[in-house]
Amino acid sequence: METWLSSLITATPQEGYDLAVKLSRVAVKLTQPDPAVRERVRPEYADNGDALIAISHVVAVNFATVAAANDYWRSAGDELPR
Amino acid sequence: METWLSSLITATPQEGYDLAVKLSRVAVKLTQPDPAVRERVRPEYADNGDALIAISHVVAVNFATVAAANDYWRSAGDELPR
Amino acid sequence: METWLSSLITATPQEGYDLAVKLSRVAVKLTQPDPAVRERVRPEYADNGDALIAISHVVAVNFATVAAANDYWRSAGDELPR
Amino acid sequence: METWLSSLITATPQEGYDLAVKLSRVAVKLTQPDPAVRERVRPEYADNGDALIAISHVVAVNFATVAAANDYWRSAGDELPR
Amino acid sequence: METWLSSLITATPQEGYDLAVKLSRVAVKLTQPDPAVRERVRPEYADNGDALIAISHVVAVNFATVAAANDYWRSAGDELPR
Amino acid sequence: METWLSSLITATPQEGYDLAVKLSRVAVKLTQPDPAVRERVRPEYADNGDALIAISHVVAVNFATVAAANDYWRSAGDELPR
Repeated sequence: METWLSSLITATPQEGYDLAVKLSRVAVKLTQPDPAVRERVRPEYADNGDALIAISHVVAVNFATVAAANDYWRSAGDELPR
Repeated sequence: METWLSSLITATPQEGYDLAVKLSRVAVKLTQPDPAVRERVRPEYADNGDALIAISHVVAVNFATVAAANDYWRSAGDELPR
Repeated sequence: METWLSSLITATPQEGYDLAVKLSRVAVKLTQPDPAVRERVRPEYADNGDALIAISHVVAVNFATVAAANDYWRSAGDELPR
Repeated sequence: METWLSSLITATPQEGYDLAVKLSRVAVKLTQPDPAVRERVRPEYADNGDALIAISHVVAVNFATVAAANDYWRSAGDELPR
Repeated sequence: METWLSSLITATPQEGYDLAVKLSRVAVKLTQPDPAVRERVRPEYADNGDALIAISHVVAVNFATVAAANDYWRSAGDELPR
Repeated sequence: METWLSSLITATPQEGYDLAVKLSRVAVKLTQPDPAVRERVRPEYADNGDALIAISHVVAVNFATVAAANDYWRSAGDELPR
């Protein structure tokens, strides 16, 4: 597999969220490498409330990791008292 | 997509909770961009006990991230002995 | 919505646990604001083993957050060697 | 409710695990306060593989919290190089 | 119950993983103490894809705890710049 | 079982992700040691949207552990202000 993840550091929280989405999708690709099968099962989850919630859950777990990696994008300006 | 997440820092825990709800919803939108489909599946979860619990779970994971980002909104006044 | 979450700091672990239960419930209210519907789906989970376990899971995630916020209610008296 | 949780600190990891089990059970009691109903649904999960795994998951989440509270019961003797 | 958990510290990551598996199994035993019933439900999960994934999830949560307890088995040799 | 996990430290985030996938698979092997059964249940999850999401969830939990172990692969070059 080509390089798809060279760093967890992103410029903004939103880019970090996009990375979390990507991290969530790659595991699916590694388990089911056939794009035709992935396309076939897509409606199973994209049109299904439970599956959409489950996807959101995975993104949340990955976002926690990316956010921690970026020290929560706390800039010097809004640094919290610790 | 327009900018929807510029910071994880919020003024209060309750605003942090609202942000956690928002983080939970955006993953759904990214997976199912069609608002008509999202509206159609909404009763599947809004009227279903299991789905409501699952949503609460995702919010809990995102709230953990937001709370950590804000150092749990510990003000100087209620700083804990560490 | 009125203010319902002004702090994650509680006096005791048990009050922290109660707060975790509250955090778990609010996400349900925000997703399904109609109290009549919430009341109707309640037996779906209150009388169902799987749902009771799922609720306990959500409370556990929120309790982790509240406990961290309170530095685990470690008093000076039982401070651990670090 | 009487006091059932006065501290997250335990003498040993095993007592911490027992506390994690207790934390997992209390959420069930708070959601379904009727002991007769709880007894009735018990076979649903105690004799069911999926439910037993789900319970183990909740205990794992609570154990993470209790273990962190106790700084993982690292004694001076087995302190790790940091 | 006899002593089965005296420390979270292990010599290697692999022993830590084995401990995570053990932690995952004990909750099942505490909920369903009858070994005959546990044996009866075993095929429900050992031959079932969803259940195998669910078990792997519980092990992952416990492994996170054990890994943190061991400071991720970072030896002086591969200490990271912090 | 032979040595399969000697360190959580990896050179890059992507190798860390691969390790997370491996960690997720080993628990399955330990629960169902028969490769013939594992092969038989494989289509249950590789062709099933819900199962693919569940696998991605487990990988996410393990990736969080591996990422923390590696201090998120923060190189001196992109060290964040703390």
